[in-house]
Amino acid sequence: MALDKPAPDDAGGGLIRFDSLAGCLTGAQKPTVWSLLVTVFGDLAQDEGARISGAVLGRLTDLIGIKPEATRVALHRLRKDGWIDSRRNGRSSDYFLTEWGRAQSAAATPRIYATTPAATEAWLVLTDPATPAGAKETGGAWVASSMLVTATRPDPEDRTLFATRLDAGDAPAWMTAKICDPVLAHLSQDLAARLTALDDALRDTGGLDCLQITALRVLIVHGWRRIALKAPALPDHVFPDAWSGAACRALTAELLQRLPRQALADLEGAAAP
Amino acid sequence: MALDKPAPDDAGGGLIRFDSLAGCLTGAQKPTVWSLLVTVFGDLAQDEGARISGAVLGRLTDLIGIKPEATRVALHRLRKDGWIDSRRNGRSSDYFLTEWGRAQSAAATPRIYATTPAATEAWLVLTDPATPAGAKETGGAWVASSMLVTATRPDPEDRTLFATRLDAGDAPAWMTAKICDPVLAHLSQDLAARLTALDDALRDTGGLDCLQITALRVLIVHGWRRIALKAPALPDHVFPDAWSGAACRALTAELLQRLPRQALADLEGAAAP
Repeated sequence: MALDKPAPDDAGGGLIRFDSLAGCLTGAQKPTVWSLLVTVFGDLAQDEGARISGAVLGRLTDLIGIKPEATRVALHRLRKDGWIDSRRNGRSSDYFLTEWGRAQSAAATPRIYATTPAATEAWLVLTDPATPAGAKETGGAWVASSMLVTATRPDPEDRTLFATRLDAGDAPAWMTAKICDPVLAHLSQDLAARLTALDDALRDTGGLDCLQITALRVLIVHGWRRIALKAPALPDHVFPDAWSGAACRALTAELLQRLPRQALADLEGAAAP
Repeated sequence: MALDKPAPDDAGGGLIRFDSLAGCLTGAQKPTVWSLLVTVFGDLAQDEGARISGAVLGRLTDLIGIKPEATRVALHRLRKDGWIDSRRNGRSSDYFLTEWGRAQSAAATPRIYATTPAATEAWLVLTDPATPAGAKETGGAWVASSMLVTATRPDPEDRTLFATRLDAGDAPAWMTAKICDPVLAHLSQDLAARLTALDDALRDTGGLDCLQITALRVLIVHGWRRIALKAPALPDHVFPDAWSGAACRALTAELLQRLPRQALADLEGAAAP
């Protein structure tokens, strides 16, 4: 795997502006590289046949502050794990999602890019304590033994269950803490603050080239993805008070509209030596 | 403790009628004697200063089919346990509830003689699983870990609890079975059938003397007492389908009206040798 070196110098103003914008999102902490690359492929190259050159990947990760060696190691790991594959293309290589990787990306896409909550209703379901429920696949959250919170109303004819709707303010703190642990709620608060700062700083995209727009876009999607995929598919009103997922979702959607997905051909053109 | 012997022979017709009526209630099974005597004292001699002679106790227990020796043993046990005390009265003894025994009887009386359900509303309360609730004194039923069914609505301001009203048909079978176990529900069905049979057979109290009326009354109260005091103070609609407590309560109230409490002086007169 040969990665092209990033362009040795950049037109000063655009890069300074990009760094200050990207700084809103990353702070001092750099994302896990292989996970960030999953976000890159999911955002840019989920279509069948879509490929990204080593040059584009090198430029994007460099913008985000990732060293070429770390990118190489992460690409190797993703190939080994079956997420991506590569093809030689002249002096360089192109990378693309495997069938399995595309399926994983497609499954996560609705949650990450949703502009509306994953669900609008929550149901508290009490199951027979003598019959351990194996129904972990409901997409809800078990808040205690025999107590499930789910977005799907159970069949009212099912006389083995007790079910009642949870409206805003119904769930006590111990229940909301089981639906979303305090660490995840705190992460969502942190991200909401960062996205708000970016939203304030990004009055226009002037001075940003297509690679910088894409790098910002990737950082936004990645920040929200790490939270959205860990949260159960339940309405925001059953989350803890600290949960800021609704704000993250709205800011992500708005920022991604202002930082639209760039054509792969344009990115390749910009990254070409 | 000297118990007078029962009158050696009785006016035939009245006794035959009594036996067939009492047979509706007892079937082949005789009640536990000391427990039945608690019912006798609670029904006849709960007032301060009220006493029952050995003669009356002997006649009542004999009518119910209890041997004099068994009555003597039971009275001894009740004295030893602090329920009752006795005073010599000429050749015989009088028996009466202790202060403690009167307090126990008074506490149980509302449940036993109630003509209305112990409660009209039921609330399902979910408590924090991390905080074991010691609130067993609520009078409700714990249907699972952290799940209480109670007649009292919790303070809506208490944000540590989730509470919702349980209406008719809301509670699944596993929950109603925890509120009232199947054995107790079956006992209530059996008693309701017996009380219905007695209700049919007892078109009038003609031919029954005051001791016989009292013995029937005691059997009715005793049958219902054993069930009513074991059931939680919750509305009938959260009990299992088999639960017939509402029928027992209504039949008991109706039969006791037709078999009114007899004056102690009249009983003493009838039992006098």
